[in-house]
Amino acid sequence: MNTFETHRQLFDSHLENYKADVNLRSPRELYEPEHYILSLGGKRLRPLLALISCDLFGKDPSHALNSALCVELFHNFSLIHDDILDEAPLRRNNPTVHTKWNTNIAILSGDVMLVKAFEVLKNYDAKEFSQLFSIFSKTCIEVCEGQQLDMNFENTNSLTVDEYIQMITKKTAVLLGCSLQMGAINSGASKIDQEHIYEFGKHLGIAFQLLDDTLDAYATDEKSFGKQIGGDILANKKTFLVLKAFELAKVEQAKKLHELMGQTKVVPDKKIQNTLEIFNELGVKALCEAEADKHTKIAIDHLLKVSADRTKLKALETFSLALLKRNT
Amino acid sequence: MNTFETHRQLFDSHLENYKADVNLRSPRELYEPEHYILSLGGKRLRPLLALISCDLFGKDPSHALNSALCVELFHNFSLIHDDILDEAPLRRNNPTVHTKWNTNIAILSGDVMLVKAFEVLKNYDAKEFSQLFSIFSKTCIEVCEGQQLDMNFENTNSLTVDEYIQMITKKTAVLLGCSLQMGAINSGASKIDQEHIYEFGKHLGIAFQLLDDTLDAYATDEKSFGKQIGGDILANKKTFLVLKAFELAKVEQAKKLHELMGQTKVVPDKKIQNTLEIFNELGVKALCEAEADKHTKIAIDHLLKVSADRTKLKALETFSLALLKRNT
Repeated sequence: MNTFETHRQLFDSHLENYKADVNLRSPRELYEPEHYILSLGGKRLRPLLALISCDLFGKDPSHALNSALCVELFHNFSLIHDDILDEAPLRRNNPTVHTKWNTNIAILSGDVMLVKAFEVLKNYDAKEFSQLFSIFSKTCIEVCEGQQLDMNFENTNSLTVDEYIQMITKKTAVLLGCSLQMGAINSGASKIDQEHIYEFGKHLGIAFQLLDDTLDAYATDEKSFGKQIGGDILANKKTFLVLKAFELAKVEQAKKLHELMGQTKVVPDKKIQNTLEIFNELGVKALCEAEADKHTKIAIDHLLKVSADRTKLKALETFSLALLKRNT
Repeated sequence: MNTFETHRQLFDSHLENYKADVNLRSPRELYEPEHYILSLGGKRLRPLLALISCDLFGKDPSHALNSALCVELFHNFSLIHDDILDEAPLRRNNPTVHTKWNTNIAILSGDVMLVKAFEVLKNYDAKEFSQLFSIFSKTCIEVCEGQQLDMNFENTNSLTVDEYIQMITKKTAVLLGCSLQMGAINSGASKIDQEHIYEFGKHLGIAFQLLDDTLDAYATDEKSFGKQIGGDILANKKTFLVLKAFELAKVEQAKKLHELMGQTKVVPDKKIQNTLEIFNELGVKALCEAEADKHTKIAIDHLLKVSADRTKLKALETFSLALLKRNT
């Protein structure tokens, strides 16, 4: 049995109950997309973190089930709307909501999921609800800001590595911190512990995203990576690798990299290969891994400052490191 | 000085402060649309109702300012997203957000406004916040459902008048009820009073929308109506008038009405004139006004059951009736 498999099953069962309720609502055009995207699977990492955190601070993880549902609903709302923005045809190998239905339905069913994410928190008593709401709404706004920064970056040439890390922090990392903090709130953890567990999740998220950048370029097994290797290079995405490469490149290398990113009609393998050559000359893979390592260390430092059962802390540390190595 | 002019000024000043804060936030691409739509004016009817209701139940209306802001932010969020769905080029004679910027920015800035609408409620203490949140989130979901029903109705031929009233109830009327109930919660009104004031607002909203249908077809002064007269007829909108006409029409009249609604390349004035002829033959204007009158009476009945200062109740009744006559 995998680590935290019981937590995962606990959430899956809660999600199934929620989905059964979604199936009863009308108009169907509004709720079918919600049921659909929640049925596409996924790691359920965010809800899992909420349950693990609640358990870590000594309360039955089932008490955090609605916090877990809240962050999973929000995550899926953001996927529906982001897929419109990115004009993405596929999500987890299935048609995206705006492709399967249409953009209008995707906008509106996303909106209602965002409201539902808030509404499930009402299952907690007024004081707990108020605390959960504060961290959750702050995070929602940051995620929107992160998504806007990501869109802005497509049209910016003078982007720094620091700005990139700020963007991934908002777009993906803060929701991991938020999930953990919500579980901690459910467990009645102290403010200090809430902050440490939040920072742990946030820096873990940054490390995860940075390693995702290197995997996108350097993974050897497409199936286990789950995405097309070199996809970011082909899409001219400004990842840590590209930005660091521009930062370090000599004039000739920068010119070559610019040319490669400007190419649209090109043999994909050739574009990937030539870009990787420059990455390798400049050693940006190792620098990206070092940056990820820095954030992993910050994350673990925060985790170790948490006042909780040592065995449970160790289990969460092991789980996190395995997550970064993508072998969970 | 108009009725409730001081309440209006109170809200305007609160909104200006909020807008000044919006101006400080970044990324600008996300927050400029919010500032823009909040600067386009409008009747500010929903926030006004929140303040009036708080005052009615005996508390300083300024205590309801954040409830008022909440419903106005939500209303404007829904305008941004609805304008995308409707492909509307203009909003209050200015370019819509998705026209001035683009659809992606309109989706994302709408999302962040929806979260902000919830977040301003955090200014209240935990118990009050929890009560405000319940009615507000329920209403948000109903408004989304109403919008979806409206989209569905475009492709439905077998629509009944009852279904139409259910749609306008969700799409527009419940938010008026919600605004009043939120003000009542702020004032510490009893559950019974909260329900009566909610039902008052809801039925007032239904009456308002029904009268809007007749004005769209029969208004004599385009400037004071504020929209193109006959706009609904030209857009083949399934209003109460059309649905009632189909319900009452003899075979020949129904056939003519179907033909008129199928016409796209037609002289606008001719289409409006011919449609109005059928409306007049069937007397649907009077039936629509009678239906509006029915809901106005239900609204006033609920208002008169409220336990509050008689002078203030009378002022709200006068204000509401003037609103229906469009001479506020």
